[in-house]
Amino acid sequence: MWDRLLTGCNIATMDPNVPGAFGAILDGAIGIQDGRIVRVGRRVELAGYRAKSVEPLGGAWVTPGLVDCHTHLIFGGNRAGEFEQRLNGASYQEIARAGGGILSSVKATRLASLDELVEQARPDTMSELKMLEAARALGESEAVRISPTLLALHALPPEYADRRDAFVEMAIEDMIPAAAEAGLATAVDAFCEGIGFSPDEVRALFTAAGEHGLRVKLHAEQLSNSEGAALAAEFGALSADHLEHADEAGIGAMARAGMVAVLLPGAYYALREERKPPVELLRRHGVPMAVATDCNPGTSPTLSPTLMLSMACTLFRLTPEEALAGMTVHAAKALGLEREIGTVTTGKAADLCVWRVSRPAELCYWVGHPGPERRIVAGVDS
Amino acid sequence: MWDRLLTGCNIATMDPNVPGAFGAILDGAIGIQDGRIVRVGRRVELAGYRAKSVEPLGGAWVTPGLVDCHTHLIFGGNRAGEFEQRLNGASYQEIARAGGGILSSVKATRLASLDELVEQARPDTMSELKMLEAARALGESEAVRISPTLLALHALPPEYADRRDAFVEMAIEDMIPAAAEAGLATAVDAFCEGIGFSPDEVRALFTAAGEHGLRVKLHAEQLSNSEGAALAAEFGALSADHLEHADEAGIGAMARAGMVAVLLPGAYYALREERKPPVELLRRHGVPMAVATDCNPGTSPTLSPTLMLSMACTLFRLTPEEALAGMTVHAAKALGLEREIGTVTTGKAADLCVWRVSRPAELCYWVGHPGPERRIVAGVDS
Repeated sequence: MWDRLLTGCNIATMDPNVPGAFGAILDGAIGIQDGRIVRVGRRVELAGYRAKSVEPLGGAWVTPGLVDCHTHLIFGGNRAGEFEQRLNGASYQEIARAGGGILSSVKATRLASLDELVEQARPDTMSELKMLEAARALGESEAVRISPTLLALHALPPEYADRRDAFVEMAIEDMIPAAAEAGLATAVDAFCEGIGFSPDEVRALFTAAGEHGLRVKLHAEQLSNSEGAALAAEFGALSADHLEHADEAGIGAMARAGMVAVLLPGAYYALREERKPPVELLRRHGVPMAVATDCNPGTSPTLSPTLMLSMACTLFRLTPEEALAGMTVHAAKALGLEREIGTVTTGKAADLCVWRVSRPAELCYWVGHPGPERRIVAGVDS
Repeated sequence: MWDRLLTGCNIATMDPNVPGAFGAILDGAIGIQDGRIVRVGRRVELAGYRAKSVEPLGGAWVTPGLVDCHTHLIFGGNRAGEFEQRLNGASYQEIARAGGGILSSVKATRLASLDELVEQARPDTMSELKMLEAARALGESEAVRISPTLLALHALPPEYADRRDAFVEMAIEDMIPAAAEAGLATAVDAFCEGIGFSPDEVRALFTAAGEHGLRVKLHAEQLSNSEGAALAAEFGALSADHLEHADEAGIGAMARAGMVAVLLPGAYYALREERKPPVELLRRHGVPMAVATDCNPGTSPTLSPTLMLSMACTLFRLTPEEALAGMTVHAAKALGLEREIGTVTTGKAADLCVWRVSRPAELCYWVGHPGPERRIVAGVDS
């Protein structure tokens, strides 16, 4: 006897092994036992099974639980003041002189207590480690899976302005070992960019990550082409993220390395960028595209995954099926969790969303769909 | 003794008579009696008053209730299928041949029952009159004020393709008198555009509206300049809406007529327009700018007023104060309701939103703020 049987639903399994658009099963049913999916199929195929709870869903659509594979959700303060100053005519230089920009978030995050960070991230380091601890606490207190990444090289703190090497050394010799030892991160990330860190610095960081058994990911080719995609491929990275300025050489390298391209339309929108990621090249090389919020106080202050589905379609011209795959099956792969989550498939965790829509494309069509009617995490309504 | 005293809040009154940005009152209080605001001021100024219910708000920000002054909320079906076809590569012509486009919404709306229309619009003609009845029913069943407009000339139904004049005549001789007599609309609107209706047709419609005591509004200069803004000014219109292609002559006429410019960033986003409304010209001529969702199934399928605040700032470069004025004080004026709603002012209806934010600009900063913590309509929590 199963724990639950969801029935009378249409299922966008997003499983590439299920034929047809969205891997859809019409008039389907899902068996759940011990937090996992034990059977998925047409309703008639599951008719003989019994469950403690049989739940007819009245024709609703079920998708895998949405996976936001690139979010900087843990931060102190927000940057609404700076947003306002800029729209009132202040220049970036004036804002930076007044203490704004990413370093203002670094400062606010340093000043915040762990509890404050957890509290803010609930409906919203410095130690990077404190942020990872906040992420872990969030995963323990809320019905959400957290896959934490150590963003070791993002912005150079001002006190290291004249000692750049010392900061990189600290990331390599202190942050990575500490995060690995405490089991606080499963991957290491960096911002490879003129205003971030150089390919050589990233290479040294990624080498250290490998030595500590951590996978890597990279913020690459957002504002210019630094050949970050190829560098990430060299290290067998899970993903390269942003990619507005990626070229065919980098995308070919990503394809050969089996990487995921993570597209971040919220940052493109908020920064009013004009250069879009090379979606056609990614398609041609068969690189799976994930879509994520990039939630952060400076360049993508959004909390809505469904709005990112809209923006992926409207701004980047993904098809609704590509966009939804980008927040399910391919997002799971970008986190190295493709065996556990991302599709409605027998054996995977029972992480599901139930939507009152007429077809899956509606999730992308509404400009910010208000969200699922029900969320199920590891078999439990949340 | 008042009914309610909200206290310990910061108030963005949006009242032009209150000095300073957002007409803000810090550490303020609001007295409410019989659904209306009876006193607004600093907390210490209201300390001597008594109320049946005294409610400390713990430093939250209070704004006027948001006013969405341009929405086509009542419609049958949605156009997610067409959205998907287009992203999958179908041309507009192919979609139209397959029965898509606005006429598919007209058809779905004609087929829907009144109850279905009300039901759809709740979380989300033909006859145009049936839509107005649905709007009225929505206002009666939900805690929301409805200010209904008869959009008499929007798209020519296919059965009138060869009898254009007969349709305009029906709008003038049947629809306007019927709507006026039943008290179903307070204003009459039209779509003045090459693909809509001509200035002469609109002029005839507006003349009839005036004869029946109805104000007018106009969808003007969205896709091209048809001199609709000046035409609307000629008839003392409440507003001209869209305005991407408006020129200085039209804007000057609007200023002299005391009209409001209604900006609709959701349609600009969904249609991937490149031409923005002339915000600088509107500022220079002192034309008040409202901001609205334009919620409709074809060109702006959005339900989020706060997302429009973000888009007004990010896409159109309004300041946060301008954007919030656009969904409060100026939106009220665009409906002719500026004496009743739109600011937190003694004597007006107690329509209020309570927000857990650090400053009003946060409502525009988040890319789709999830909405107020509390809504108060006519003095009652909703």
